[in-house]
Amino acid sequence: MSSGASEADAHADVASGLAVPLPVVHKPKVSFCQACGNPTKEVVPDGEEKVRAVCTVCGSIHYENPKMVVGCLVEHNEKILLCKRKIEPSYGLWTLPAGYLEIGESAAEGAVRETLEEACAEVEIVSPFAQLDIPLIGQSYIIFQARLKTPHFSPGPESLECALFALDDIPFDSLAFSSVIVALKMYIEDKNDGNLKFHYCTINKRPGASPSDPRGFDLDYHLHS
Amino acid sequence: MSSGASEADAHADVASGLAVPLPVVHKPKVSFCQACGNPTKEVVPDGEEKVRAVCTVCGSIHYENPKMVVGCLVEHNEKILLCKRKIEPSYGLWTLPAGYLEIGESAAEGAVRETLEEACAEVEIVSPFAQLDIPLIGQSYIIFQARLKTPHFSPGPESLECALFALDDIPFDSLAFSSVIVALKMYIEDKNDGNLKFHYCTINKRPGASPSDPRGFDLDYHLHS
Repeated sequence: MSSGASEADAHADVASGLAVPLPVVHKPKVSFCQACGNPTKEVVPDGEEKVRAVCTVCGSIHYENPKMVVGCLVEHNEKILLCKRKIEPSYGLWTLPAGYLEIGESAAEGAVRETLEEACAEVEIVSPFAQLDIPLIGQSYIIFQARLKTPHFSPGPESLECALFALDDIPFDSLAFSSVIVALKMYIEDKNDGNLKFHYCTINKRPGASPSDPRGFDLDYHLHS
Repeated sequence: MSSGASEADAHADVASGLAVPLPVVHKPKVSFCQACGNPTKEVVPDGEEKVRAVCTVCGSIHYENPKMVVGCLVEHNEKILLCKRKIEPSYGLWTLPAGYLEIGESAAEGAVRETLEEACAEVEIVSPFAQLDIPLIGQSYIIFQARLKTPHFSPGPESLECALFALDDIPFDSLAFSSVIVALKMYIEDKNDGNLKFHYCTINKRPGASPSDPRGFDLDYHLHS
């Protein structure tokens, strides 16, 4: 997961220790205009309803949008490929190979690239598996089911270790992110049912909760194909 | 579709009249640092492989990522709700209600909001239907199947007209974007098969092609659940 993409990125903005979730109020983070370098101000542009960072000189409006994190759920011989993180956040915890989608690539291409970077594994996408939105931190996880093209993998520069886990042996107490917990639980349920589906859901994190705390979020809007 | 989100947004960057598609080479568009207002330069940061806009003073790296466009395929009495665009691009052509996902909302919430804004229609999401990536212009369409909560709709400020179309009467010659053409064709095929699926595919546009030209793109990587 290059560029430090993780569910924890936005947590610095979240006050800790709150017992009751607060509504999400997004504050624009663009202080200076990307086009001309002059200061922005926070205003509601004509014809819009939301506060945006607008340049005080050239009038450019700076939109901020959620980012897609793309990754693979790689199955090989009834086992799942996980990577132990060599970077913060969640150093030493296990994750699916995943990272920010780049401009110019499709989600499937990005998921293949991240799996190569983090697990040195060449994979083939089998099917779309899940979209897991995390509105509080402006991320949407797009997870594909994939298979190894060759039975080879090894840790990339951002991984301490890569390993295959039987479904009964998934280290749920040592997973890096709620999105990974949710994706793996859905996958195990589908495998037990003998029916792999596409899942859409929203992970509503509780402010102040650790990103890897399995009790730190609620699942809403769980729909499947 | 607020903020002018459309497949045509990026076409100004694409040279017209090319017979052969060129590889996508993304040029950073951030000329000045969002954090301190000083000029950026295009460099490959340490530990990365891609050129980024990096601030010459504070060193901030400015990542640019694809945007999600969220929308609804609303069915009512075996007909589909379409909106005739009152804004450019594709003024006067028909589209599904859709627009850029905002920070702080889930894709499903964004699709419901856009349908309310463009068709004054209150809808309930039924299931995820499609993810259509368009790498050339850095967009990913996330389309949900939805139904009307009440049988009421009317044009919002960005629509000339809203109407329900029987599947046999979809105006394929007057659709606004390739993503709309692809989503509707997939939906009609699924309905004819009696089996609605979730679809993932990549729309690879040919540089210089009109966004509404049904021959202006190739479909790759078409997978379904």
